[in-house]
Order: sequence, then C-alpha cells, then structure tokens
Amino acid sequence: MTKPVRAAQKKQTLDFDAYLKERAKLVEKNLSKFIDKIPNAPKILTDAMDYSLQAGGKRVRPILAMATAEAFGKKAADVMPAACALEMLHTYSLIHDDLPCMDNDDLRRGKPTNHKVFGEDLALLAGDALLTYVFEVFAQNGKIKTIGAENTLNALQNFAHRAGASGMVGGQTSDVYAEGMGTQDAASIRAEKIKKVSKKLADKSLRYFLLPPTVQETTPEAVLLYIHANKTGALIRASVETGALLAGAKGADLKHIQKYADCIGLVFQIVDDILDVTASAKQLGKSNSDTQNGKLTFVSLFGLEGSRKHAQLLIAKAQKALDSLKNVKRKNLAPLYAMAEFFKTRTY
Amino acid sequence: MTKPVRAAQKKQTLDFDAYLKERAKLVEKNLSKFIDKIPNAPKILTDAMDYSLQAGGKRVRPILAMATAEAFGKKAADVMPAACALEMLHTYSLIHDDLPCMDNDDLRRGKPTNHKVFGEDLALLAGDALLTYVFEVFAQNGKIKTIGAENTLNALQNFAHRAGASGMVGGQTSDVYAEGMGTQDAASIRAEKIKKVSKKLADKSLRYFLLPPTVQETTPEAVLLYIHANKTGALIRASVETGALLAGAKGADLKHIQKYADCIGLVFQIVDDILDVTASAKQLGKSNSDTQNGKLTFVSLFGLEGSRKHAQLLIAKAQKALDSLKNVKRKNLAPLYAMAEFFKTRTY
Repeated sequence: MTKPVRAAQKKQTLDFDAYLKERAKLVEKNLSKFIDKIPNAPKILTDAMDYSLQAGGKRVRPILAMATAEAFGKKAADVMPAACALEMLHTYSLIHDDLPCMDNDDLRRGKPTNHKVFGEDLALLAGDALLTYVFEVFAQNGKIKTIGAENTLNALQNFAHRAGASGMVGGQTSDVYAEGMGTQDAASIRAEKIKKVSKKLADKSLRYFLLPPTVQETTPEAVLLYIHANKTGALIRASVETGALLAGAKGADLKHIQKYADCIGLVFQIVDDILDVTASAKQLGKSNSDTQNGKLTFVSLFGLEGSRKHAQLLIAKAQKALDSLKNVKRKNLAPLYAMAEFFKTRTY
Repeated sequence: MTKPVRAAQKKQTLDFDAYLKERAKLVEKNLSKFIDKIPNAPKILTDAMDYSLQAGGKRVRPILAMATAEAFGKKAADVMPAACALEMLHTYSLIHDDLPCMDNDDLRRGKPTNHKVFGEDLALLAGDALLTYVFEVFAQNGKIKTIGAENTLNALQNFAHRAGASGMVGGQTSDVYAEGMGTQDAASIRAEKIKKVSKKLADKSLRYFLLPPTVQETTPEAVLLYIHANKTGALIRASVETGALLAGAKGADLKHIQKYADCIGLVFQIVDDILDVTASAKQLGKSNSDTQNGKLTFVSLFGLEGSRKHAQLLIAKAQKALDSLKNVKRKNLAPLYAMAEFFKTRTY
C-alpha cells in the first residue's frame, strides 16, 4: 500500500493555492471569449449573462473537469469548451435561484444579484440564455480532434442528465419544499408553501413534493441526502465525469472516479452548511440565508461536530477511490487529491 | 419548369389535416415516453413538466423536423429524439414567458398556465428542467445508427444557437423592451420598464435594449423584424434545419431549405399577429394579450391587409426554395409544401 504515500508526496510538490488561482484565471479568460463570440443579441442580454459569469467564484467545476481530463491523459485545453460550459451552467442556476420567486436574495458573492441590476425579466432570460449557450459551447468540444464527436456527445448527455430533473433541478425542487424542515415550524411553513399550488396537489403525500417515488423513506435524513446529492452534488459529480468521459475513461476506472466525485460533492455541500453557521456574511459574500430560512442542513440534523466527522470520512473514501485508479497518469492526480483536501478545509 | 406543377399534384394526394393529426399523436406518444423515463425526480417536478407538454398545441416544430428529414431520405423515427426535444424547448419557453415577471398570463391553450397550477417557483424549475432535458434527449439521437454522433452533435450545436441569445432568447429580450412600441404611450411605457434596471443602464441607447449592436437602424420596423425573426422564427428555422442536418444535408440544398425555413418562420409570426386581432380568445386558447399590451406587431405597423400580402409573398418564396432542392426524395416534399400553405391559412 504505497499509493497513499506517493499521493502525499505529490501534494507537497503542488502549490494548490497558486494552481487554483492560475486555473481560475484561465477559465475566466475563456468565459469572456465565449461571451464575446455571441452574435445577434441585444447588448443588455449578453451584459446580463457576463455580469454573473464574471462575478467571481472559485471555478471549481471547470477546474475539476480539466484536472480529471489530465489524469486520464488529455490536456486541459482539450476540454476547455466543456469546462466553461460547466461554469455557465452553475452560473445560470445561481441567477434563477436568487430570483424573488425562489430565494429572493439581494447579494451574491458580495455584489447585487442579477435581477437587482437587470430586472427580474432579464435575469430570467439571462439564465435561460446561459443554460442554452451551455450546450452550444459544450458541443464545440467535438471539434477538438483529441476528443471527437462520440466522446463529446456521450459526455454531454451525461452532463445534461446530472444538471436536470434527475439531478440538480430535482434537488432544487425538493429544497423549495423542504424549507422550514430545519425548524419547529416545519408544518406551518410547508402548509404556506403548498397553499401556492392548486388544490388538487395540496393533499399529496410528502414524497410527492420532496423525494422521487422510488425513495422508500420520507425522513428528514432522506430528504437532506437527496437534496445534497442532487442540488450541489450532481454538478460536482458531472464536472469530474465530464473530464473523464471526454477523455474516454471506461469500466472500473470510470466507477472509481465517479466514487471520488460523489464523495467530494457531498463534502462540498456539508462544508457549505458548516460555513453558513460559522462564517460571516462578509466572508461568504452572501447572507447566511439557509440558517435564517430554517432550511434543512447537515448542521441542523447532525450538529457541527457530526458534520465535520462525516466530511472527514468522505474525504478518506475519495482519496481511496483515487488510489484505486489504474489507467491514469499518476503524476497528474495531485490536483484531484489536493481538491478533496481543499473541499474539506475551505473557509469561503 | 414542371416542378411547381408536380408539387401541386403531390399536395392533392396528401390529406394534410389527417397528416398533422396523426403526426401530432405520434409526437405526443413519444413525449410521454420521454417524461416517463426520467428517474430520481420528485413527482411534482415531472408532473409540472408533463402538464405543459401535454397541454396541446399543433406540434409543428417536431412535425417540420420529421418532414424535412424524410425529404432528405431518412425516416421520421430516425429523428424522433431531436423532434421531441424541439417541442420540449418550445414548451419551456411558453412556461417562462407566461410567468408573472414576463407576460403574466393566466391561460395558455385554454388551460391555467403552469405557475397557476404549480406555483411560480416550480414553474421556473419545470422550465429549467425541460430546457436541460431537451439536450439530454437530443443527444440520444446520436445512438440511432442512420444518424450517428457527428451529425447529431452538429445539429445540436446549431439548434442551441437558434434557441439561445443569438436566436429565440435574444428575440424575447427585445420583445420585453419593445412593449408599448405599438401604442402612443411608447415612451412612457419604456420609461417604466427601464426604471426596473439599475441606474447605470437606464441612460443607454435604444439599441442596447432592443437590437444587436450590429444592426444599424433602430426604427420600429427593424425592431419588429428582429423580434419576429428570432422570438418565433429562430425555432421554426431550427426545426427544419435540425431535420436537414441530422439527415446530413449540405451545400446548396442546405441553403435552399434554410431559405424555406426562414420564410415560413416569419409567416408563422405574421399570422400570429393577424390572429391576435381577428380571432377570439376562445379560438386562441389564450387572451389577445399582444394587442392589449400594445406590443409591436406586424398588424400595428403594416395593417391587416399589408400583413396578409407580406405573408403571401413569403409563402411564394418558400415554395420556390423547395422547388430548387436537388438531392431530395421529391415525393417526400409534399408535407413541406402543404405546411407552408397551412402556416398562411391557419385560424388557430
């Protein structure tokens, strides 16, 4: 069992903070290029798209896709269109999530939210335009010869699956109706929510609003796990998978890297829940709205210590999954090990 | 010049009403199948998606895609996933367009709009989920051997281009700010709209809100043409192009079929404007909101007669474009000729 040691050695040679900064810059340069290339649109629309794309963020999704592609022997540039598409998808989801009919947030990453600047109608359309552009840009990856049409289409289909009803949007739906489940007023908050739907729906079971029909239990734990695995986890998972699928990863290696992705995706959200309690609004660049809104979170269910322990366990699993990879460039795995550590220890 | 005659003969042998009904049924059966296949989503979300997908409509977009693919020698079934994706995209755009922050419509096709049944938040998410599923489903077309990954990716990229900022969403953006341009109160209505955006944007030129920077004139005619070519036209065009590109159409034939698509797309919208004035809300299954909202329409600019004449001219051009096609199964062109006629004469 020398692999973990080898991995630890690799980590020492990588200045991960510098790596993250350099990669984020690279992504931002390419995001700008993609926006500049949009023809035939009113300027207010491309400005609204650009405003939220350039509003900062860690760019972990595209960075994960590039790092995974490199682990499987491709260059970062080989997957740049798809990597940028991942960030655009994340950005559209933030714009729509901040809208008055959703979280009604005024601040995102320390700046006014999209609808505060451009109006609700344009924020809706900017989100729609980004979500559509996501797939136009992703498809361009097929023109890169080292990747090709087949791997691109395969990766695109998987990515759309994770981003839609079966993944991110499914998680967001559950999150809407789970509001208040972290408080004593759960029943009355949900009753208020359900008043907004037609009478025919109002007497449906909890599962109808919160969980897929296939999930057996409707406990708060089951709801929380579904939301976290999907609302945030699905896109983190898709980022890693996109890099792997574009690079042509298959079989056991694909399974291992998916395991890694699953674990770090959940850690990312657990740490988000922890930070919502422990960090200031200034550090987060947004209000601590989850706690204020009585949302169901890891911390509200398992406490701070329990959440931290769970994150620790998941990181160990993620690193073990990396250890198990076979047909990879092992020297290129350092950023993936480091990313797992970063997800656990980040303070913003 | 025997071709137009041949075409006219073909038209006589086709019962187009029955054809439309049969094809619409086929599309609806497949749409249901695609929705049933969505795993891992709360039922309220897939119900909300399904509600608007099954709310009727003529299904002209998928029917156009199938008919075009058949003209270029493929079978309707060869392009079914992409055809269904076109209808899903159209449906998401209606759901979002009806939202309170957009047109705020209560009725669509004679039924309560999505947000009236499921609430604003779920309607937003159902639209997002549909728009994402569009590309997952479209990508599946690559698995059909007669089409393959390369043609699918090519068609998908073009389709996303037409549906996004450079096409449909660009047109919708302009439409938001063009509200009132059909009335005497244009200036004050626009001033109200612009109050909703941040002060920095409020003193931008008309073009910033209404037209791409590349368009030279900012006359009402230029705005109307931009909106019509994009808000509705782009997706009609994309429907025809999708059928053609999936079937591998190239060169002059691709240009001719695009010309056809451009013409009928514009006719479709001109007739929409005419019906908004001449048909009852009951016939339309929605309120005559364009006229009531003082929207810029073909009728408000060119009058009823002028609009009808323009539609007539465009149909002649569309049919001439079909006459010019070379590498096609001419006997399969009948539905495309008939569709042009239908677009001009439809009463709903």
